[in-house]
Amino acid sequence: MTNDPAASAPTLAFDPTDPVALTQALVRRASVTPQEGGALALLDSVLAAEGYEVHRPVFSEPGTPDVENLYARIGSEAPVFVIAGHTDVVPVGDEAAWTRAPFGGTIEDGVLYGRGACDMKGGVAAMVAAAIRYRRANPDAPGSIAFLITGDEEGPAVNGTVKLLAWAHERGERFDHCILGEPTNPAAMSDMVKIGRRGSLTGKLTVQGTQGHVGYPHLADNPIRGMVRLLAALDATPLDTGTDHFDPSNLEVTTLDVGNAATNVIPAQAKAVFNIRFNDVWTPETLAAEIERRLREAAGNTVRYEVGFQPTNAVAFLTEPGPFVNMVADAVAAETGKRPALSTTGGTSDARFIKSYCPVVEYGVVGKTMHQIDECVAVADLVALERITHRLLGTYFAAQHGA
Amino acid sequence: MTNDPAASAPTLAFDPTDPVALTQALVRRASVTPQEGGALALLDSVLAAEGYEVHRPVFSEPGTPDVENLYARIGSEAPVFVIAGHTDVVPVGDEAAWTRAPFGGTIEDGVLYGRGACDMKGGVAAMVAAAIRYRRANPDAPGSIAFLITGDEEGPAVNGTVKLLAWAHERGERFDHCILGEPTNPAAMSDMVKIGRRGSLTGKLTVQGTQGHVGYPHLADNPIRGMVRLLAALDATPLDTGTDHFDPSNLEVTTLDVGNAATNVIPAQAKAVFNIRFNDVWTPETLAAEIERRLREAAGNTVRYEVGFQPTNAVAFLTEPGPFVNMVADAVAAETGKRPALSTTGGTSDARFIKSYCPVVEYGVVGKTMHQIDECVAVADLVALERITHRLLGTYFAAQHGA
Ligand SMILES: [Zn+2]
Ligand SMILES: [Zn+2]
Repeated sequence: MTNDPAASAPTLAFDPTDPVALTQALVRRASVTPQEGGALALLDSVLAAEGYEVHRPVFSEPGTPDVENLYARIGSEAPVFVIAGHTDVVPVGDEAAWTRAPFGGTIEDGVLYGRGACDMKGGVAAMVAAAIRYRRANPDAPGSIAFLITGDEEGPAVNGTVKLLAWAHERGERFDHCILGEPTNPAAMSDMVKIGRRGSLTGKLTVQGTQGHVGYPHLADNPIRGMVRLLAALDATPLDTGTDHFDPSNLEVTTLDVGNAATNVIPAQAKAVFNIRFNDVWTPETLAAEIERRLREAAGNTVRYEVGFQPTNAVAFLTEPGPFVNMVADAVAAETGKRPALSTTGGTSDARFIKSYCPVVEYGVVGKTMHQIDECVAVADLVALERITHRLLGTYFAAQHGA
Repeated sequence: MTNDPAASAPTLAFDPTDPVALTQALVRRASVTPQEGGALALLDSVLAAEGYEVHRPVFSEPGTPDVENLYARIGSEAPVFVIAGHTDVVPVGDEAAWTRAPFGGTIEDGVLYGRGACDMKGGVAAMVAAAIRYRRANPDAPGSIAFLITGDEEGPAVNGTVKLLAWAHERGERFDHCILGEPTNPAAMSDMVKIGRRGSLTGKLTVQGTQGHVGYPHLADNPIRGMVRLLAALDATPLDTGTDHFDPSNLEVTTLDVGNAATNVIPAQAKAVFNIRFNDVWTPETLAAEIERRLREAAGNTVRYEVGFQPTNAVAFLTEPGPFVNMVADAVAAETGKRPALSTTGGTSDARFIKSYCPVVEYGVVGKTMHQIDECVAVADLVALERITHRLLGTYFAAQHGA
């Protein structure tokens, strides 16, 4: 993929304020994590040509591939408005099942096809295009615009946003507000702005028994009996009832396995894995303690078990509704004619890292086809996102002027 | 194994009233189900030489190997005292782990080693030896002695005792009482006579869910949640409280599997297998109906599940304590000095088939090593079983005389 001559020396055959052409150009640069694939190089040349100071830090971690990232800024004053995103994409999957070339960027009937079209090269392209259009028209606008673009969001996510933020902070960069262009809309551009995300905690539960023959149950101890009791206890009472902006935290057992083929044998062990999507009532630590308490109580002296939790940085966060959130929602409403919901649903995103540096809101295109065969984005949605971002930048910096 | 010249034309180099020599001779004839291995041929010649009329019916069933069986009878009058057993054995397993040749019949320090030594060539040999000694000394004893020996007890058990019984009944054979020489004793010859067996019913439970992402649980339906609820319901109240001679019926879930490796995915299906060892409160049909009722009640309208039961002929049965059971227990007590327990514990046996034709009691050697590496039987126990059987035959036919 890096053999594409365009990757090393991109020449612009298109107008960088055209979000559709820019999305196509990005889609055609295959950048499956951890491959940069020319996508960051393209943004580098586009932004540098507009006067941005561009950095391309590469981050490393033993056991994971090195990953390229991009940080670009125009302007030297506060406030710094950050546009965040990623150019890496998930693998194509069953390529034969695609009806268009996965890295072709074909447009048919107003729809642009390709891996990353909605998640999230379309979002990055529309916001880059909007920022260029805004700065071209307002070269003396107050404050700064910064791009924080990673190549490691879909992969292990250790050499990406989390390190890019630390790297920038180390250099003295200070951020005031951030918009992350992930595809937040379920079906239409007016659907949803995300103002927070639930956290995620994965645990592994093992119940020990004593193997034996079903004909002699008193000589055995069936771990499935204990497992059923523990899982019933975890599910018996809700973890919480939700908060103003969050659904109740939710635990799902994702697998439960014994693997005993002998119908006359009581097995020795049962294993379960569970995942909790939790709201801002909890931290991973307080939640793990609550799970441990419930298990301890249900087990009493009779169930022998072990529970362990995967290390997680997927904390819950919320950007409280207020002027900045309203500014985003207002821009969406003005361009789409409908006010979007302020939501905290769905999976995790890099916003969980950004929120430690500045308030962050997520908004992007329609995510219905993300990670799927024939991933696509409507051309009209790219145009809408460019206009919404452009309006947001205008309102944001105008407000600074007035302040 | 059938290449052994001894298999086709056994010549007796030992006294057939010696239970130890006869056990050795049987152990040396490797007869892993469905191989006859010369074991039945040996019994054939031993019994024929004593005047028994011997039959060797071979039974067939599509999908299973043909299996040889043996039916032998001496005497033409009622009552017919049946001695039942099997000469087939389970496979050797890890042969390298054996410290003696699995088919060697080695005796060391008063212990006879070999596959089948306790389960149940030792039992067959001791009872054959006792019957021969008894008839030699009492050629004019009333009634008849019959041997019902199968080569298909450890395997599918479809071409064995169940067909041999039907075959004999078809020929007009009528049985009055039966002793089955399975190894009933846990540790010592005075431990246990089995007067019944629990039945066995195996069921398979599948709970259907709807796959989805853990971040969007409202779009999914986790089958593990339903499975836990159903299994908890099956376990919530005992099936029964036991009867005079039986422990309570007992349900064990033997496996429970989902097989979902993705910790962010709610799986589509969960499967469990359970086995119930049930007493004479139930038939397989009434028990299946009760399980179905409990599942239906626990599932309500929210859990989608299917339950199915394996066809079973493992019904529960009881030979009520009375004169015949007492006669067996008395013989054990007289020879060992201690009265055995009358038990219904443990797995199933061919007695479940025999009980439809006549009262049946099980008694044999110590079964501690059955199916294991270095299976063995104490020489003293073989001698004791021969003496107990001899005493039982004497009492049994003397009682007929008196009647
Ligand atoms: Zn994404
Ligand atoms: Zn047996």
